[in-house]
Amino acid sequence: MAATVYAQSPSRPSWLDPYRETAAKLIHESSRDDFAWRRLAELTDTFGHRLSGSENLERAITWAEATMKRDGLQNVRTEPVMVPKWVRGRESAEILNPPHHPMAMLGLGGSVGTPAGGIEADVLTVSSFDEVRSRAADARGRIVLFNAPFTTYSDTVTYRTNGARVASQLGALAVLVRGVGPAGLRTPHTGSVQYGQGIPPIPAASISTEDADRIARLSAAGTRVRVRLAMEARTEPDVESANVVGEIRGRERPDEIVLLGGHIDSWDVGTGASDDGVGCIVTWEAARLMAKLGIAPRRTIRIVLWTNEENGLRGATAYAARHAAHASNHVFALESDSGVFDPASLGFSGSAAARSIVRDIGSLLTQLGLSDIVAGGGGADIGPIAQAGNAPMMAYLGNPTRYFAIHHTPADTVERITSQEVSKAAAAIAVMAYVIADIPERLPR
Amino acid sequence: MAATVYAQSPSRPSWLDPYRETAAKLIHESSRDDFAWRRLAELTDTFGHRLSGSENLERAITWAEATMKRDGLQNVRTEPVMVPKWVRGRESAEILNPPHHPMAMLGLGGSVGTPAGGIEADVLTVSSFDEVRSRAADARGRIVLFNAPFTTYSDTVTYRTNGARVASQLGALAVLVRGVGPAGLRTPHTGSVQYGQGIPPIPAASISTEDADRIARLSAAGTRVRVRLAMEARTEPDVESANVVGEIRGRERPDEIVLLGGHIDSWDVGTGASDDGVGCIVTWEAARLMAKLGIAPRRTIRIVLWTNEENGLRGATAYAARHAAHASNHVFALESDSGVFDPASLGFSGSAAARSIVRDIGSLLTQLGLSDIVAGGGGADIGPIAQAGNAPMMAYLGNPTRYFAIHHTPADTVERITSQEVSKAAAAIAVMAYVIADIPERLPR
Repeated sequence: MAATVYAQSPSRPSWLDPYRETAAKLIHESSRDDFAWRRLAELTDTFGHRLSGSENLERAITWAEATMKRDGLQNVRTEPVMVPKWVRGRESAEILNPPHHPMAMLGLGGSVGTPAGGIEADVLTVSSFDEVRSRAADARGRIVLFNAPFTTYSDTVTYRTNGARVASQLGALAVLVRGVGPAGLRTPHTGSVQYGQGIPPIPAASISTEDADRIARLSAAGTRVRVRLAMEARTEPDVESANVVGEIRGRERPDEIVLLGGHIDSWDVGTGASDDGVGCIVTWEAARLMAKLGIAPRRTIRIVLWTNEENGLRGATAYAARHAAHASNHVFALESDSGVFDPASLGFSGSAAARSIVRDIGSLLTQLGLSDIVAGGGGADIGPIAQAGNAPMMAYLGNPTRYFAIHHTPADTVERITSQEVSKAAAAIAVMAYVIADIPERLPR
Repeated sequence: MAATVYAQSPSRPSWLDPYRETAAKLIHESSRDDFAWRRLAELTDTFGHRLSGSENLERAITWAEATMKRDGLQNVRTEPVMVPKWVRGRESAEILNPPHHPMAMLGLGGSVGTPAGGIEADVLTVSSFDEVRSRAADARGRIVLFNAPFTTYSDTVTYRTNGARVASQLGALAVLVRGVGPAGLRTPHTGSVQYGQGIPPIPAASISTEDADRIARLSAAGTRVRVRLAMEARTEPDVESANVVGEIRGRERPDEIVLLGGHIDSWDVGTGASDDGVGCIVTWEAARLMAKLGIAPRRTIRIVLWTNEENGLRGATAYAARHAAHASNHVFALESDSGVFDPASLGFSGSAAARSIVRDIGSLLTQLGLSDIVAGGGGADIGPIAQAGNAPMMAYLGNPTRYFAIHHTPADTVERITSQEVSKAAAAIAVMAYVIADIPERLPR
């Protein structure tokens, strides 16, 4: 499915003339050096992965708050949020027969563990929910492998999310899910699993595409494949975490908010560089550039680094609850949670009137290659407040092929992102946010 | 360094005319289906990795012997070889400070283990032997990280092979080596380490390029990086293994040998598909194609699947010792131990007279894209016997960029090799071996 590109506006809409110089300054300042990339490396090198409930996450939050203050952002604060604490523990999955073969695996976030010693059973390999339902008798007492080839994330993530529930209803003992991503280098992809009300939760893990293919080939050849899955995974009581908030205070209408952000938590593998360290850094950087250049737009630019996007969305929910009375003051919300890999684009969701304005602003981003605004903006973290306030939404969208190759894997690390990609995203977000925050009338709903 | 391509010969040397029809048949038969690829998948799926001393290796050897017999090869047998037994055991490497970060690592084959509980020390990061020697005082009592960026395998493998010896002489406690290969997806590369006479052996492990970069960035920023390395690695007494041998017996000069092969052992990660399951399969397939088509050349074609190439070369040494009296009967030796990834080539080492003949035979491989023979043939397994017998040597050389991306890693699996790549290699080796085995005079030394 190709993205819908809104027809480009005339190349120099005259209403933008008052903003051209400042936009050019923001773009120039962002591209001057690799400051933002180095900040991303500092975040990921110093704190590593940042799963909800971990010390790493809380240390990163403390650092972000202190660093935002040093940047000269205003009203910098944390807003407390109770978050779930899921703990992976030790885990393994191995083919026992034919001869012992340890698989590349990751338990799915939120999964229950196995009994000590693991679950040992024959594997039933299926490639769809229809197939497992049609083989219900074979699923009972087995470990079900959902081996659906990756097409798009939205099409195939359902096996990771819902596979355990469906298989449990058929009496399966556990599920393995082919990694939701293109083939890597024996790379498993974690992510959350969801259980159903009244359905016994069964352990769920992701395995690499290569290991899934191996089981599938053996099964197709009529070989009985026996697997042992052992997981210490458990959920502990909720703990306190926080959203980090900082602002460029509006000079005329400080109560009207242009909301920007990403999520500071990550899965507990890799270092959460693309998901979503970089989303935090580029939105934060947009505000830092304004602070540095002394730009004070008409409305307030608010940066939020949400906690617990990955396995609970508690940060987003808490923000929407805490700011419910001011939901309608959110005039625009932008989230960066799809990485910044080139070629990137900006996606937008809102009324035709708002679209027309945003499309015009896009013309300021021509030198960044981001002038065409595509259909579809939003994000898990901005969703609740934007919905409550009926705010137009935008997403910074990195190249999905490169993103999903490392999404939720141990390979989500900083060095595969270039400093140019980071600077470009920060510049584009800064220009878009600045103009929307500064135009005389608020962006139409 | 670009490969030297010998000047191509006239496109249709007339002396080859008697061989054109058979060569075409071999190429056609090889390309008809994915038989050879499926055999490679059977080997790697059924037996997995095949480290010397493992049950997997011995089961694969038994299977290969039985399967060669079923193929109709002659004089199929195993020739016993005592091989080292190195056992990896559990292992881990983690950054302790800044906060805990488990690294993607693999102990190096042959390494000693650490004391129980591991070795904990600050890291000294260097990028060359010169640098570590110039910082000898800093190396003492530390874990030394050799962080030399990958250029070519031959240029950078020295840190894996010799790093422990050099660092031990300076009083280091252990070494970490940046994976010898291009950046993967947090992919560590194992391989053997060599200790020196009279120098205390210290534990040695490979870490992923991403983890090496992270330590290097932290060290460059002045952060003290503390690491714990824990390895249960140990060497047990030698055990019996075997080379697998099968032949197409020569119709006129059965004592003159055209030797083809790869090594059946592998490292204990991945499934040893490219290194070197595929080398075994394509050379064996060359003989199977001849048996199937009823081709009996003048001289004997001998296939050897050597054991213990990776960590001892005992199979090659034993073969050379056992057949020492007949070394000079080896008229030609070809090894496939560089994978078969496209674009591939054939490399040759021998006299000018032999080169001229081999170059002519290359013209029969035009449709396979392999007509240009490049300089440099040989292989670790054919080396000892070919040297003893002064035999011309050839190597089937897969694309090194793709090969070294997965070399000695958990990602060395069958699905990244295409059936076309396997069939092409088998066809080229079959044609080359058949003509050399059939020409009236033996290939000049």
